[in-house]
Amino acid sequence: MSTDLIIKNALLVTCDQRHSVLEDAAILVSGNNIKWVGFSRELENHNPANTEIIDATGKILMPGLINMHSHCGDTLFRGLVENLPLEQWLQTVWKSQAVILRNAENCRLGAELGFAELLLGGTTTLMDQYWHPDQTITAALDAGIRIATGGIFFDPHGMDGYSIDHRATQAHELFARHGGNEEIFVGTMPHGTYTAGPDSIRTAVEIANQYGGFFSIHAAETKVEQQTIRDRYQTSVIRLLNDLGALSPRTTLAHCVHVDDEEIDLMAANKTNVVHNPLSNLKLASGFAPITKMMAKGINVTLGTDGAISGNDMDMWFAMRLAATIHKAANENPSAISSHETLHMATLNGARALAAEDMLGSIELNKRADFILVDITGPHAMPMFDPVSHLVFSAAKSDVSDVFISGRHIVKDRNLLTLNLSDIQNRITELQPAVKAALDE
Amino acid sequence: MSTDLIIKNALLVTCDQRHSVLEDAAILVSGNNIKWVGFSRELENHNPANTEIIDATGKILMPGLINMHSHCGDTLFRGLVENLPLEQWLQTVWKSQAVILRNAENCRLGAELGFAELLLGGTTTLMDQYWHPDQTITAALDAGIRIATGGIFFDPHGMDGYSIDHRATQAHELFARHGGNEEIFVGTMPHGTYTAGPDSIRTAVEIANQYGGFFSIHAAETKVEQQTIRDRYQTSVIRLLNDLGALSPRTTLAHCVHVDDEEIDLMAANKTNVVHNPLSNLKLASGFAPITKMMAKGINVTLGTDGAISGNDMDMWFAMRLAATIHKAANENPSAISSHETLHMATLNGARALAAEDMLGSIELNKRADFILVDITGPHAMPMFDPVSHLVFSAAKSDVSDVFISGRHIVKDRNLLTLNLSDIQNRITELQPAVKAALDE
Repeated sequence: MSTDLIIKNALLVTCDQRHSVLEDAAILVSGNNIKWVGFSRELENHNPANTEIIDATGKILMPGLINMHSHCGDTLFRGLVENLPLEQWLQTVWKSQAVILRNAENCRLGAELGFAELLLGGTTTLMDQYWHPDQTITAALDAGIRIATGGIFFDPHGMDGYSIDHRATQAHELFARHGGNEEIFVGTMPHGTYTAGPDSIRTAVEIANQYGGFFSIHAAETKVEQQTIRDRYQTSVIRLLNDLGALSPRTTLAHCVHVDDEEIDLMAANKTNVVHNPLSNLKLASGFAPITKMMAKGINVTLGTDGAISGNDMDMWFAMRLAATIHKAANENPSAISSHETLHMATLNGARALAAEDMLGSIELNKRADFILVDITGPHAMPMFDPVSHLVFSAAKSDVSDVFISGRHIVKDRNLLTLNLSDIQNRITELQPAVKAALDE
Repeated sequence: MSTDLIIKNALLVTCDQRHSVLEDAAILVSGNNIKWVGFSRELENHNPANTEIIDATGKILMPGLINMHSHCGDTLFRGLVENLPLEQWLQTVWKSQAVILRNAENCRLGAELGFAELLLGGTTTLMDQYWHPDQTITAALDAGIRIATGGIFFDPHGMDGYSIDHRATQAHELFARHGGNEEIFVGTMPHGTYTAGPDSIRTAVEIANQYGGFFSIHAAETKVEQQTIRDRYQTSVIRLLNDLGALSPRTTLAHCVHVDDEEIDLMAANKTNVVHNPLSNLKLASGFAPITKMMAKGINVTLGTDGAISGNDMDMWFAMRLAATIHKAANENPSAISSHETLHMATLNGARALAAEDMLGSIELNKRADFILVDITGPHAMPMFDPVSHLVFSAAKSDVSDVFISGRHIVKDRNLLTLNLSDIQNRITELQPAVKAALDE
């Protein structure tokens, strides 16, 4: 067996089904994959030539985080509009977006800034919904981040200036161009039931099914959204999606804050995945998603940061800490959600939602070598009675020292190897006045 | 005027009453105090000998954070017990504490670990409640962190092994020894109305009044606590404190999660301060403190991290982000609390609660030179349309590069100058097995 990379002397948090933790552990990587997992001492006589060896003493080795909902391009608009409810806030941000995002290059710039932030914080896989998804995919391939994205469906005049007719064409094109790449995930992504009509959603479902791709949509994020759908269609968001054939194991619904018990049962019966975005839901005053109820019904709940305009940073560690704590208070039950469940939301559950549980989400034999090293020498990491509890309740994005995706070293000693961060930042600085000015156009 | 230190080219977030922000700003420090605040260009011909000049390009200069509620010694027990409601959780943690904390040196070790964490994250002033407060004060003076602490009152058998009679003696001794030091704050700190009887609380109030010190107590943290006080005294926590003369402008009540409107009015009428500890309240499932209601009534609401056993790190940035977001969701109002209000909770409001508004909490002429530099060159800091919004919604503890307290350089380029962190960590590692074993004694 050829070995390209050895990580040894690590505290290994596998995130596998049994939540296995190994002290003084090691892994061998060959090509894209993990080829061996065991104890460092078992490596003693294993000293292959041409193999990079990384000593992970003082570090946790764990799978890369899977961020199942973001809009990376929105980093361009970070902090531009604050303190408004979702609907007014969207209408305001959209004013600037409609000017700035006509230029597909700007979408790419925003994506790159978002990728930089996410990679430095340990996210290795990202489901992103944004205008010009072709730009997002190209940028992701260059940055080395594992991307899940697809054609947007949006019936009002879109921020990219495209017409409704162009949406299906774009979705097909993305599958044609990238559907054969097993290292990324292509799907269809209508914005929401209040912004994409039944025809668009049905088309998006059909295209996803045709290519075996995923389907993702914002759903039941706010009370206003549910009321809009009741007024417009005399039904609820999740029931409408069910009627349109949009609930399936390949579907990931973003938010699901305002869902009734029957809607939860519908999602459970269809094995639909949910992505919980706690910070966005808090900041936009959307509410507390009933994720503990969903989990009790067997729904696969994953985790997301949402975009940088509802965040404002995209920090999966913060998202984990929120998911692990706000539902304890909201349910008046300190056992409402465990640290193990929370860590799975950010890793293995994401892999499951992508139908890629055999490939991602845990450190296991023959999975992709998507992993991170987390420094545990800081004062906030001591004492450590339980590494999982530490990761969920005390670790931070700044503890991530190294990131590998498909065995490729992407972040090394906190430095991003695949993107020119200062160049990105210079271009952001140049664009910033136009972003602000566009609000008043 | 002699000048010891110049900070120039900073983005200055003063945190003053008017929330003033100055670009390309500078300050001059002489001795303990800020002696001049203005624009860098005004310094052009000011080049005094023997003055250290720090170029703060790419950094926000702001007052140090004031953490109004913690138990630093509890870092020894970080993550030891998880997922229990407050009362059961306390009973479990106390088992280990009763063994470990008999040794006052262990209290000091825990305090040092906590100080290290807080200083590196930009906290310059700390109200701490813990066993052996004499150790806390000595350790704080050595570490250079500005401390507010005082004699503990706790009627059951205390973790320090002291009897009830010793409590008042200890409180007097602390004032005798440190009351004359204008750089720290001495007070009295009964644990809570359910753990300290009316006589103890009355004594604590009297001693605080006698020396002009502060008074602080846990109050109305949980529903169970309120029920206990109803059963025991046929009144509520805040009413009981009012009857005991414990509500005053020198009083800071920790938590106040479960308070009715009349209790809020009582606190407001007495100009009592409140310290909000959002993470602790979430993780222990205590609930959502009605701070927006309190603020509307004019109550001075400050911010705290609580201890590392209910945290588990002590991160004031996380506390700010929580305070700025959870009340939006809990009140279904995205304008429920502004970023300016949140930043004041972590700075100027703390100074006010300590009766030290003329000395701390903002970058203003003749205040103490307690300030921090916050790196704004990271990807999550771009673009930046509003520095205050950035500080509350995107900045992190890892962005703090430098910390000054009374003009003394405490953290330099992310390195702690006043404590031997690796020595502290070695001693924590040595003690860790005993902390765990003590749970089963």
